[in-house]
Formats: sequence, structure tokens, C-alpha cells
Amino acid sequence: MLYEKHIFICTNQREAGSARKSCGEAHGMELVHAFKKLVKDHNLKTTVRAQRAGCIDVCEWGPTVVVYPEGCFYGNVQLSDVNEIFEQHVLNNKPVERLRIDFSKKPA
Amino acid sequence: MLYEKHIFICTNQREAGSARKSCGEAHGMELVHAFKKLVKDHNLKTTVRAQRAGCIDVCEWGPTVVVYPEGCFYGNVQLSDVNEIFEQHVLNNKPVERLRIDFSKKPA
Repeated sequence: MLYEKHIFICTNQREAGSARKSCGEAHGMELVHAFKKLVKDHNLKTTVRAQRAGCIDVCEWGPTVVVYPEGCFYGNVQLSDVNEIFEQHVLNNKPVERLRIDFSKKPA
Repeated sequence: MLYEKHIFICTNQREAGSARKSCGEAHGMELVHAFKKLVKDHNLKTTVRAQRAGCIDVCEWGPTVVVYPEGCFYGNVQLSDVNEIFEQHVLNNKPVERLRIDFSKKPA
């Protein structure tokens, strides 16, 4: 495994008027930049990677972030949630349960 | 874990004249389409996801593909390699060693 944590942030932007919600490029890139800054500030570039990704196909719960190798999917992720995901999950290996997508329930 | 296999394919395209090699959008999207077709043909859409991703930061070994949850990184992936990765790794859980990136060695 190259990275201890590999964070993929959806930056998919659908065309206006699309029937399906999208995570959004602008919001997604804000999240990417925020995660990347934390990786850099903690000097973890060789072990943690945060990056943009295309559609993760859980759009209804977006904006979405997935962290591997755990395969932990976060939904409705706001810029204000990034610190908590980073501190708790990336640094301390404890997924943030309040943001975790419960696929057994319908999206809010 | 939502997906049993989550395949990320780099489609990052740097500007012409960039000092660093890039996997390339055109080639990357060809790989994405080929993997997606196999997922669909095998009727595995609920358990396997193949998608585009931004720069995975192993550009020197590109075009690159990473399969999670194993965190298996493949390098120099050609369209002709997609069937083998899919049949062997995705369907039968045996990574394709000949394509696996050996990060202890310099890229070819």
C-alpha cells in the first residue's frame, strides 16, 4: 500500500438542469484544497494523499468524500467538516460516524 | 465498504511543455470506458466501481490505475491490459503482478 490514507473527493459537476444532484466542482475543489493543506501542514505527503475524483456514484448523499483503505464514505461534507475528518480519521484512525453515509437509509 | 472493488483511473492532463509526465486525459478516459464496459457486461454495478480520478501522484509510472481496498497500484497501463486486470484482479482477487508498480525501483 503506497498511502496509509487515500482521500478521494468528488468534484463532479453536472450540467445545469440535470435530473441528478452533483457534488459540484467548486465545492469539491474547496474540499480538495482544504485536505491538501492539512496534509502539507502535517508534513504527511508521502503517506497521505488527498485528491479530486470523478463521480463516486453516491450523488444523492453528496458532497461526498471516500477514504481508503477503509472504504469509508462521507456524505454532505462541508468545508467546516474537513478538520474533524482529518484529525479524527486520517490522523487517529477513527472514522467520523456522524458524517458517514448510511446506505440503508434514504438520503436527507 | 460500499464497493468490493473501487478502481480509480488517472485522467490528469498537464499542459503541453510541463516538466512532469502526465497520464493523459484521452488515454485515461479510454481506460475508464473499457473498465466501465466490463463492469456493466458482468452486471457488477452495485459491487464494482470504475471511475476517473485526478492526479494520483505517481506520474512517472503512468498511465496509472489504483484498485482499492487492496491499494494496488498499476503502472504503464494500456488498453490491452484492462481485460487482464479485470478478469484476474477484480473478478478473481489476484493482482496482476507484471503491471504492479514496484516503488522501490525507478520508473522505466
